Amino acid sequence: MPSLHDATRGRVLFGGDYNPEQWPEEVWADDVRLMKEAGVTSVTLGVFSWAMIEPRPGAREFGWLDRLMDLMHAGGIGVVLATPTSSPPPWMGALHPETLPRTEEGTVVTYGSRQHFCPSSPVYRRYAAALTEDLAARYADHPALTMWHINNEYCTHCWCDGTADHFRRWLAARHRTVAALNEAWGTAFWSQRYDTWSEILPPRRVQYLRNPAHELDFKRFTSDALLECYTAERDIVARHTPHIPVTTNFMPLWEGQDAWAWAEHEDVVSVDVYPDPKDPRGGQYNAMLADMTRSQACGPWMVMEQAAGSVNWREVNHPKPAGLNRLWSLQAVARGADAVCYFQWRQSRQGSEKFHSAMLSHAGEHGRTFAEVKRIGAELALIGAEVSGKEVTAEVAVLHDWDAWWGAAQQDRPSSLVAYTELVQAWHAALWEGGIATGFARPEADLSGYRMVLVPQLYLLSDAAIDNLVAYARGGGTLVCGFFTGVADPDGRVRPGGMDSRLRALFGIRTVHEWWPLEAGATVECDGLRGTLWSEELEPDGSAETVSAYRGGELDGLPAVLRKGTATYLSTLPEPGALRDLLGRRAAEAGVRPVVEGLPTGVEAVRRGELLFLLNHGRSPAGVKLPGRRLDLLTGTETDGGVELGRFGVAVLRDVPA
Amino acid sequence: MPSLHDATRGRVLFGGDYNPEQWPEEVWADDVRLMKEAGVTSVTLGVFSWAMIEPRPGAREFGWLDRLMDLMHAGGIGVVLATPTSSPPPWMGALHPETLPRTEEGTVVTYGSRQHFCPSSPVYRRYAAALTEDLAARYADHPALTMWHINNEYCTHCWCDGTADHFRRWLAARHRTVAALNEAWGTAFWSQRYDTWSEILPPRRVQYLRNPAHELDFKRFTSDALLECYTAERDIVARHTPHIPVTTNFMPLWEGQDAWAWAEHEDVVSVDVYPDPKDPRGGQYNAMLADMTRSQACGPWMVMEQAAGSVNWREVNHPKPAGLNRLWSLQAVARGADAVCYFQWRQSRQGSEKFHSAMLSHAGEHGRTFAEVKRIGAELALIGAEVSGKEVTAEVAVLHDWDAWWGAAQQDRPSSLVAYTELVQAWHAALWEGGIATGFARPEADLSGYRMVLVPQLYLLSDAAIDNLVAYARGGGTLVCGFFTGVADPDGRVRPGGMDSRLRALFGIRTVHEWWPLEAGATVECDGLRGTLWSEELEPDGSAETVSAYRGGELDGLPAVLRKGTATYLSTLPEPGALRDLLGRRAAEAGVRPVVEGLPTGVEAVRRGELLFLLNHGRSPAGVKLPGRRLDLLTGTETDGGVELGRFGVAVLRDVPA
Amino acid sequence: MPSLHDATRGRVLFGGDYNPEQWPEEVWADDVRLMKEAGVTSVTLGVFSWAMIEPRPGAREFGWLDRLMDLMHAGGIGVVLATPTSSPPPWMGALHPETLPRTEEGTVVTYGSRQHFCPSSPVYRRYAAALTEDLAARYADHPALTMWHINNEYCTHCWCDGTADHFRRWLAARHRTVAALNEAWGTAFWSQRYDTWSEILPPRRVQYLRNPAHELDFKRFTSDALLECYTAERDIVARHTPHIPVTTNFMPLWEGQDAWAWAEHEDVVSVDVYPDPKDPRGGQYNAMLADMTRSQACGPWMVMEQAAGSVNWREVNHPKPAGLNRLWSLQAVARGADAVCYFQWRQSRQGSEKFHSAMLSHAGEHGRTFAEVKRIGAELALIGAEVSGKEVTAEVAVLHDWDAWWGAAQQDRPSSLVAYTELVQAWHAALWEGGIATGFARPEADLSGYRMVLVPQLYLLSDAAIDNLVAYARGGGTLVCGFFTGVADPDGRVRPGGMDSRLRALFGIRTVHEWWPLEAGATVECDGLRGTLWSEELEPDGSAETVSAYRGGELDGLPAVLRKGTATYLSTLPEPGALRDLLGRRAAEAGVRPVVEGLPTGVEAVRRGELLFLLNHGRSPAGVKLPGRRLDLLTGTETDGGVELGRFGVAVLRDVPA
Repeated sequence: MPSLHDATRGRVLFGGDYNPEQWPEEVWADDVRLMKEAGVTSVTLGVFSWAMIEPRPGAREFGWLDRLMDLMHAGGIGVVLATPTSSPPPWMGALHPETLPRTEEGTVVTYGSRQHFCPSSPVYRRYAAALTEDLAARYADHPALTMWHINNEYCTHCWCDGTADHFRRWLAARHRTVAALNEAWGTAFWSQRYDTWSEILPPRRVQYLRNPAHELDFKRFTSDALLECYTAERDIVARHTPHIPVTTNFMPLWEGQDAWAWAEHEDVVSVDVYPDPKDPRGGQYNAMLADMTRSQACGPWMVMEQAAGSVNWREVNHPKPAGLNRLWSLQAVARGADAVCYFQWRQSRQGSEKFHSAMLSHAGEHGRTFAEVKRIGAELALIGAEVSGKEVTAEVAVLHDWDAWWGAAQQDRPSSLVAYTELVQAWHAALWEGGIATGFARPEADLSGYRMVLVPQLYLLSDAAIDNLVAYARGGGTLVCGFFTGVADPDGRVRPGGMDSRLRALFGIRTVHEWWPLEAGATVECDGLRGTLWSEELEPDGSAETVSAYRGGELDGLPAVLRKGTATYLSTLPEPGALRDLLGRRAAEAGVRPVVEGLPTGVEAVRRGELLFLLNHGRSPAGVKLPGRRLDLLTGTETDGGVELGRFGVAVLRDVPA
Repeated sequence: MPSLHDATRGRVLFGGDYNPEQWPEEVWADDVRLMKEAGVTSVTLGVFSWAMIEPRPGAREFGWLDRLMDLMHAGGIGVVLATPTSSPPPWMGALHPETLPRTEEGTVVTYGSRQHFCPSSPVYRRYAAALTEDLAARYADHPALTMWHINNEYCTHCWCDGTADHFRRWLAARHRTVAALNEAWGTAFWSQRYDTWSEILPPRRVQYLRNPAHELDFKRFTSDALLECYTAERDIVARHTPHIPVTTNFMPLWEGQDAWAWAEHEDVVSVDVYPDPKDPRGGQYNAMLADMTRSQACGPWMVMEQAAGSVNWREVNHPKPAGLNRLWSLQAVARGADAVCYFQWRQSRQGSEKFHSAMLSHAGEHGRTFAEVKRIGAELALIGAEVSGKEVTAEVAVLHDWDAWWGAAQQDRPSSLVAYTELVQAWHAALWEGGIATGFARPEADLSGYRMVLVPQLYLLSDAAIDNLVAYARGGGTLVCGFFTGVADPDGRVRPGGMDSRLRALFGIRTVHEWWPLEAGATVECDGLRGTLWSEELEPDGSAETVSAYRGGELDGLPAVLRKGTATYLSTLPEPGALRDLLGRRAAEAGVRPVVEGLPTGVEAVRRGELLFLLNHGRSPAGVKLPGRRLDLLTGTETDGGVELGRFGVAVLRDVPA
Repeated sequence: MPSLHDATRGRVLFGGDYNPEQWPEEVWADDVRLMKEAGVTSVTLGVFSWAMIEPRPGAREFGWLDRLMDLMHAGGIGVVLATPTSSPPPWMGALHPETLPRTEEGTVVTYGSRQHFCPSSPVYRRYAAALTEDLAARYADHPALTMWHINNEYCTHCWCDGTADHFRRWLAARHRTVAALNEAWGTAFWSQRYDTWSEILPPRRVQYLRNPAHELDFKRFTSDALLECYTAERDIVARHTPHIPVTTNFMPLWEGQDAWAWAEHEDVVSVDVYPDPKDPRGGQYNAMLADMTRSQACGPWMVMEQAAGSVNWREVNHPKPAGLNRLWSLQAVARGADAVCYFQWRQSRQGSEKFHSAMLSHAGEHGRTFAEVKRIGAELALIGAEVSGKEVTAEVAVLHDWDAWWGAAQQDRPSSLVAYTELVQAWHAALWEGGIATGFARPEADLSGYRMVLVPQLYLLSDAAIDNLVAYARGGGTLVCGFFTGVADPDGRVRPGGMDSRLRALFGIRTVHEWWPLEAGATVECDGLRGTLWSEELEPDGSAETVSAYRGGELDGLPAVLRKGTATYLSTLPEPGALRDLLGRRAAEAGVRPVVEGLPTGVEAVRRGELLFLLNHGRSPAGVKLPGRRLDLLTGTETDGGVELGRFGVAVLRDVPA
C-alpha cells in the first residue's frame, strides 16, 4: 500500500492548491520562479478544473494541464493531482437537472457555486468516473505526479427522489426487513410505521419534530453515499497507479463525514484546517485538529489546506498577525504533519474566494505574507529530514465518534445548548493547557496503550463500546467520563434507566433521576468547581466516592462528580480551569506527565521523534527553563538550560549528547 | 347530553396517554401492576395508532387493541379511546400526496412526524371517517370505554390548492358575493379587487404585506375547517355511543383554534397544559389555563395532558423539581379539573418524545417521578369524592376572544412588540397575585353575573360586543379596559376616530390623536405608575377623571388612565405591581374580595365547592393565618387558626363545624 | 423637455397620494373641502387603480376616474396621474401565472399584496402598455393633469425562467461573447465556465457562495429591466402629452435601482422619504435624502411621499411629535424640494396601510395631525413664490455609486459588518453637523465645480473614475477618501496590489499588506481619533504625511490616516466627532465655510436662492446670532441680530436691505 512517505520521501511537503487556470499562461512561469523562492515542493492541481478539461459533455482538453504538469516537473515540484469532481460544469446541471441536489424543502440547489451534485445521482457518477478514468490514464506515468486528491471537501447533501431510492437500498442493506427498520426507528410511536420500503423518504420538511432514528440513519447514509463516490474514483486511479497514494481532504470536526470510517479507505489522511486568527483558542484548536487527524491517519498526516492569512467566509475575517502562520504551521508539524499546504498559491482576483488569503497575496511578492511563507518554506527544509515520517506518541486518548455526535444532535433533546464539538474541544483544551500529549480514538478501539481515556460525551454507544470502556477501567485504566454518555444504543434507543446499567455500575450510580440542563449562561456551584451547561440528579449506589457535590439549588448535596476506583463520572461540565485541574490530577495519578513540566502560560511543548518543539502562543516573549544542552534546528544555535521564545516564537530542539 | 360526570362518576380521574404499541406485550402486564400502584383510573388509548390499526389502505388490525381494552377493563381502568386521525400512516401520504399539507411557500409537508394532513382533503376525511366508523362500532359496547378523544391537538395548517377550493366555499358562505368580500377586505386598496371567486387564494408568499382581512378570514376558516374534521368524527362516535362523552384536547392559548366555538361542540372540554418548570410565573400560568378552560367548559374540565417532569421541545428542558408536579396537579383540581392526566404513562425509549417525561420515567418505578405520581394518585383518591363535579365561582371575568387576537396579530400594526397573549397573562397575573378568583368570558357573553370585567385588549369588537360592554358599565358594572381596544370592526376595518365612538364616550375620550407604542424595554412615567409597551395621545372630553397622567416626554400632562364612573381606561400597560394595585382597588370598590385576605407572597387560595385549597408556590415554608377549625383532607389532621405549608405545600381544607 | 416647473408654476406643490376608490363617492366632496382648507394643490391619483379600471382582462372602467379628475379640476387641484402598473389585478396572476415573480428558491410570489410582477414578463408588459395607452389617450387633454407618475416604487425582483431568458439577452448585449462573460466573471475558478448562453441562470439557490460578478451583473440587469418597464410607459404617455412632465418615485438609498441612471430618463425626480421619527439622526437623514435627490435631479425635486405621522412597517412605529412634520417638510424645501407630498391624503380604514398615517388621520379634521398639515400648507403658500425653482448650491460633493455599492455587497467580503449606506450616512452626517452644504455626485462626474470631494467608500471604480479622482486631486481639489476604495474594477476583479496603483500613488501608499476589519463594537486607538469598523496594514511609500497612526495592537505605529498634498486617505472610520473634525479641517483648508458660523447644536442653516432657512432639530428653544436685519417670511416679522427658534422651530429669512 502506498503511503504519505511515497510523496514526502523524507521531506515535509510545502506548497498548496494551485489554480493556474485563473491566469494567463505568462503568469505561470512567474509562479514557478516564486514557488522556488518560497521552497514549494508540492502543488495540488485540478481541484476546480472540470469545466476546463471537459468544457462540454464528453470533450477533453488536457493540453493546458499537460503543460502545467511538465512545468511543475521541470521546476522540481511534485503534483498532487485532483479529480475535479467536486464542482461539475454548468452544462451538467443544465443538461441533467437530476444531478443537482435538492434541499429538505425540495428546492433545487443549482450550479454557479460549487459542490452542486447529488451524490446518489448515477448520471453524475458516470461522468465523474469517465473523467477520472481519462485523467488517471493520461497522467499515470507523469513524473510530476506524487499523489491523487479525490474530489474536494465532500460536503454536499441531497434530499431528492433519486436520493430517496438510494437511501432505501442502503436501509434495506442495513435493516434487511421493513419490520426490522420499524423496530429500529420506533415507528410504533406517532403512527410512523412503514408498510413498504417505497414509502420511506429522506427526512424532508415536516410539520413538527422528525423521528430521530430516521435522521440518524440518514446521516449515516449520507456519509456512506459520499464515501461510495470517493471509493469509486479511488478504485479507478489506484488501478492505473497502484504505487501512488490517494487522499481526499477532510474538513475536520465536520458532521457530514465519519472520518474514522473514511480514513480506512485512504492512503494519506489530509485535512483542511482553518482556526480563526482572532480566536484566543486558535492554537489549541489547531492542536486538536492535528491530534484528531493524526489519530485517524495512525501516523503522519497532511495539512492539505490552511490559510496564509484571512479567510473570506466569516462575519469578520481577520488576517493572521505576523508570525502566526509560521507558529501554527510548525505546530502542525510538531503534531505529526508531514505536509504543510495552503489554499491557495496565488490569491484569486475574481470569484468567491478573492478575499481569501493565499501564499502569494494581493500584496504580491513584496507583501509580508509572502515573506513569512518563504521563511516557513526555508525552515521546513531545515527540519524536514529529522521529522518526516516520525511518530508522535500520547498516553491519553479522547474518545470521539460520529454516531454518538449524530445521535446527540437530534432535535428533541434535553438542551439544545449542549453542542458535541464544544464538549470535545473543552476537554481537549483542558489537556492542552495542562501540557499533556493527547490522541483521539474510537469507542471500540483497543485502549490498552493508553494510561488515561477521556469521554467528553458519547450519548450513543454500542454494547461492544460499553464493554470496552468497562474492561478498560476495570483493568486499571483511568477513565474520566462526561455527562449524558451511554444514554442510547446504536439506534438511538434510550437504554433502560436512561444510562447503560454497566456504566452506572462502573461509576457507582444507582439511579439517574433527572437530567437538569442549565439555562444559557447559568452555572451551578459544586465543591471545588463551578459547573456549566448541565447537571444531573443522581442517586449513588454507595460504592463510589463523591468527589464533588452540588451546593445550593435543587440538587444541593447530591453528587456532581463521582469516582469509583479508576473511573470518574462528571455530571456537569466544570469551568475550564477546574476541568484542567481535575483532568490534570487524574492524569498525574495515572502516571501521565506533561511533555515539559513548568511551562509558562501559552507555551506548548510537543515531542515528535527525537525532537522537542517549543511553541509560544503568546504575543510576549517567554523563557522556558530546560535542563541540559540542545540544538535549535531553526537557528542552528545551542541552548543550555533554557530557551527564550519571542512573540509567536518556535524552537525545534534536538538533545546534544553530554 | 353526556358529560364529564359520566366518566368521573364522582372521582377525579387520574392517568394519562398510554401508547403500549411501543412495547412488547409482556410489558403491558407490568404497566397494569404499576398503574394500580399509582392509583391510575383512566388511560387514553389509540392517539397514534392509525398505522397499527390500518397498516395498509383498508386493512384493520384490532386484535392488539382488543387485548388492551380487555386488560384495562380487567384492571379496573377506564379508557378514553382516541380516534387516531391526527397522524395518518405513511402509506396515505405516499399513495395520496394531496392529503399532505403545503406551506405558504408551496412546500410539501410530508409524513415522518405527525399532524401531516390537510384538513380540507376529502381523501383524508374519507379515510378518517371510515376508520372512526369501524373503531366506534367495535368498541361501542366495550365496558372499559368511558370517553371518546377525537384526533389530537388539532394544529395542522395548509395552503394547498385543495385548501384554496375549500376556503372559497367558506368565503362564499360568509360573504355571499364577491362584491361583499371585496368590501369586507377593502380590496380597493393596492388593486386587490377580485373579479371571481376562483381568483382567491390562501394567503401565500407575497412580495410585501398581506391584506389583513384576508389573513383574518383565513384564520377563521382554518379553525372552522379543523372543526369540521372534529364534528365529522364526533358525529360518527356519537351515533354509536350517544351516552359516552366526547372531547378533543385543546392546546391552551393556541392561536389556531377558537376554543370558545369549539367547546360548544364538546361534551367534555379538555386541555394540554405545559407550564415551564423554570418559569417563575409557571404557577400563575397554570392557574390562568385552568380558569380559561373551566370558563370554556362552563364547569368541570379535564387536564388531558401535562408533563410529570420535563418536556422535550424547549431550548432547555428543565424537569419539575420535587413537589411541583403535585402542586400544579392539585392547583388544577382546585380550579375545577376533574381529571389529572399526563402525556404519557411510560416514557418512550424511541421516537421524538423519548426525552419528554412520563409518569413512569426512564428512572422507572424507583425513580422520584413515579414516587410523586403515586402520592398524587393517592391524594386524588382522598379528595375526589368531595371535589368531583363541584363548581368554582368567580366574580371577575377577563374577556378573551380569538377574533380580536387574530385581528391584532396583523403584520402591519403600530407595534409588533405587543403580543395579545402577554397582555392577557399580565392582567390575569395581576388578579392572581391579588388573590382574586377569576374567570374568562367572550365579549358578547352575559356579563351580569360579574362584579368586575376586565379587557386586557380587544382590538376588534362587534357592535354587539361594544353595546354589551357599554351596557355592562352603564349598568353599574366595573369595567377596566386596556389600550387599543375597540379599534376595528369584525372585518378589521378601523372604526371612525380610530376607536369606537361608544367606547370613547364611555371612557370620556374625545379624540385619539395618536398611538405611541414604546420602544423595546422602554417605560413611560405616569402619576403613580410606570407604563410599558404603549402610550396614547388622548384628548379627554371633560367628562372623565384623569386617574394618572403622563409625566415627561411628548405626552407630558396628558391622561394615561381615565375613569368615568365605573369605567376605567388604561392607555398604557402599567408595570406588574402597579397593575395589580390598580385592579385591586377597582375590585375592592366593586365589592370583590380576595379568596383569603392577607396571604403570604406566593401562597394561593382557591375555593371549590365546600373546600378551600391553599397552595404554596414558594420553595420556603409559609404560614397562613386562618381563623377557625378545619380538616386537611390530605393529612387527615385538624387545623386551628392557621396552616403551615411546606415547600410547594398544599392543604385541602374543609370547615369543621364549631 | 417638460420639467417640474411645468407643474409647480412658481409654487411649492402640496398634497399627496389620493386613493378615493377606498371610499364611497359621498366622501369625495368632503375630501375636496378639506383639501382646500389645507391648501392642497396637487394629488396623485391612480397608483393602485388597475383592478378598478380594468376589473377583468381588457375591460375599461374610467367613469369613476373621470369624475375624480373633474372634481379635482373644479377644486383647483392639479393631478399627478399614475399608471397603475405596480400592482396588477388578481386576474392577471390567476390567468397568467408567468407574470408572477419567483424567488431565488423558485417560490411563486403571488398576488394579494403589491409589486407582484416579473419585470421581464412580456404578458405583464403588454397589459401594462395597453392600459397606459388608454389612460394617456383619455386624460391627455384633461385640464387637471399636471404630471405623469409611472408605476410606483419599482422594487420587484424575479428569478424565474422568463427572467433567465431576459438576463441572457442583457448579458449578450453587455459581454458580446460567452468567452468574454467567462473572463468578466472569472468562471475559471470553481469550474463555473459556461459553454453556451443557455446555461446561464439568475443567481438562484446554491450550495455555498455565489460568483460575485454573477450577482453584480444580475443587480445591474434588474435595475435595467425595471428601467425598461419605466421607459416603455414613459414613451407612451410622452407621445400623448409631450408637454407634461413624467416621473417615477424613487425609494432613496434603495439598492435595487441605480437612481443616477434612472434620473436621466425622468423629467422630474421624485422620492419617497421616510425617516424614523424616533431616530435621533432623522433630521440628518432627511437632509441627506434631499441632497441626494437634488443632485440626481440637478435642481429642484419633489417629495412624492412622506408620512404625516407614523408609518406601519417598522417594528415599533412612532408618530411624529408635534412640529416634526413641519420641520422636515420645510427642511426638504430648504434643500431644493418644490413639492411636499404625502402618502396619503386620507388614512385607510382597511388594507395593509390602515396604520400608516395620512394628512387626514383616523382622528379626522380635528386631529392634531391635520392641524399641522394645514399650517404647513399655509406656510408653503407664503414662501412658495420665493423658493420655487431656486437652486441650492454646495461646494462639497460626496461620491455615491450603485456599481460600487453592489460590488461591495458581495457575500464573501472581509467584513459583513461594513454596510455601504452606513458609511455614506456617517460621512454626510459629519458635514451636516459641521453645517456644510453638500451635494452628491457620481465618480465619473465633472468635479471641477467642487472645492472638496469625499469618498466614503467606492470599492469598485472604473479606470475613468480613478483618473477623474486623481486628476481632481492633482489639480488642487481636496479629496478625502475612505477605506476599501478602488479595490476592484467594474467586473469586481481585484486590482493588482488590492488597491489601484494610481490611487496608491495619489495617497502615498506603497503596499496594502492586509485589511483588518474590526470585530462588532470594537474600536482601535489612533493619534487623535478612535477608529471603528475597519483598519488596514499599510506600508507608505515615504511621499505622504502620516496624519494619524494606529496605537497599540498589531498595527501599532502604522499609518491610520495618510495625507499627500490635497489628498487624504482614511484607513479606518473615525468615530463621529473625529470624522466631523477631520472633514471640517479639510473643508476649512479648501476654503469651504459653514452656511452660518457658530450655530447652536441641532440648528441647521440652509441657503436656497435668496433665502436662509434656519431649522431647529432640538426640542429646546435655540437662539441664533445673525448680524443684520432680516424678514421671516413665515411670521412676517423682522429680526435684527438674531433669531429665536422654538422647539422644532423654523425661520425662513430674507435679507432686509440696510
